[in-house]
Amino acid sequence: MVALKSVVVSRSTLKRLPLYLHLVEGLYAQGVEHVSCTAIAKEFDFDPTQVRKDIEVTGEVGTARVGFSVTGLVIRIREFLGWNNAHDAFLVGAGNMGKALLGYKDFEKYGLNIVAAFDKDTRKVGSRIFGKEVLALSKLPNLVKRMHVHIGIVCVPAEHAQPVADLMINAGIQAIWNFAPAPLRIPEGVILENARLTQSLAVLTNNLTRKLNTTKE
Amino acid sequence: MVALKSVVVSRSTLKRLPLYLHLVEGLYAQGVEHVSCTAIAKEFDFDPTQVRKDIEVTGEVGTARVGFSVTGLVIRIREFLGWNNAHDAFLVGAGNMGKALLGYKDFEKYGLNIVAAFDKDTRKVGSRIFGKEVLALSKLPNLVKRMHVHIGIVCVPAEHAQPVADLMINAGIQAIWNFAPAPLRIPEGVILENARLTQSLAVLTNNLTRKLNTTKE
Repeated sequence: MVALKSVVVSRSTLKRLPLYLHLVEGLYAQGVEHVSCTAIAKEFDFDPTQVRKDIEVTGEVGTARVGFSVTGLVIRIREFLGWNNAHDAFLVGAGNMGKALLGYKDFEKYGLNIVAAFDKDTRKVGSRIFGKEVLALSKLPNLVKRMHVHIGIVCVPAEHAQPVADLMINAGIQAIWNFAPAPLRIPEGVILENARLTQSLAVLTNNLTRKLNTTKE
Repeated sequence: MVALKSVVVSRSTLKRLPLYLHLVEGLYAQGVEHVSCTAIAKEFDFDPTQVRKDIEVTGEVGTARVGFSVTGLVIRIREFLGWNNAHDAFLVGAGNMGKALLGYKDFEKYGLNIVAAFDKDTRKVGSRIFGKEVLALSKLPNLVKRMHVHIGIVCVPAEHAQPVADLMINAGIQAIWNFAPAPLRIPEGVILENARLTQSLAVLTNNLTRKLNTTKE
């Protein structure tokens, strides 16, 4: 199993797997026992061969004419994504975006357990947001070490993002989820994933501006 | 200008432009007057030719040996992204994620003005979140038409996302920003942009699981 999980797969496969998982969890809830690649592909307008390849990486094996076990797919995809055991995370920046993430109950389903928040604003320190304590930022390094926390979530304004990431990495954080609209410089070996909200918005507003201008012409 | 804005550019260019904008806004604040492609490229470890091509789409023209006007870049990139005039948007789903987006002040800087929120939970209707009214979902169609709102933000749980998107589109919404962890079916001509938080998290947790397993081996 360990060898299987160490297979490097493409970002696009990793991004399609949550879609399949959502679908098969729905089927599971409806009591459906088997599903074919073709049926999954149809749901998303994907190529069935692509779906088969994506599922292959999880180690789940289908049966000819019967398809894949729905239960098997739920278990294997969750396991492959690292969503069967929640990873503990610390969040820095208890502003609006930070608060939202602290209150987003679905994250635990997706393998993320935000243990505590940190902020340098002394007025926020000591308060609780959705039951989670807000601690002084200066306490982060010690707690990362003591609690073996691996994930750091950066929710501070753009100009503070790099120093916060540096603090996390020096403390031993191994993976950073960045919500700040700023690029981060990260040493080799540390995992960086940008939530890219601003960039997603850029694609939307540019497309809309273009569409509205075309309509006017 | 209208012809220029109608140029179709790649998603990757659209996603790099906000990074450049953030950088040149910082330079502008510091009083820097000019910047070269090489300097911008170095900041992000990009190829200078790539940066030059990206900037070209905005219509800003540099001067040999002097570089680009920082002010010019700020104006042209914002204009190109459609961030010089805020687009009005309606948000559906005043849960935790929805609340966060309502309170995220930076969106106005990025051309997005969330005018009101909608929810079908009658306990939420009539309340205000960060000064923005929560209205009954049934009022959305009429208000989209009367207020000429173009953008709809979907912040409901996965299983409600498609009906909410359908309601928006039938009402005349032209662009959807989807925060629900579910794929949406959208008719041709309507713009769909997925925020992909769950998918971004999938990449992070899979990479981390793989890294931790490799370390253990």
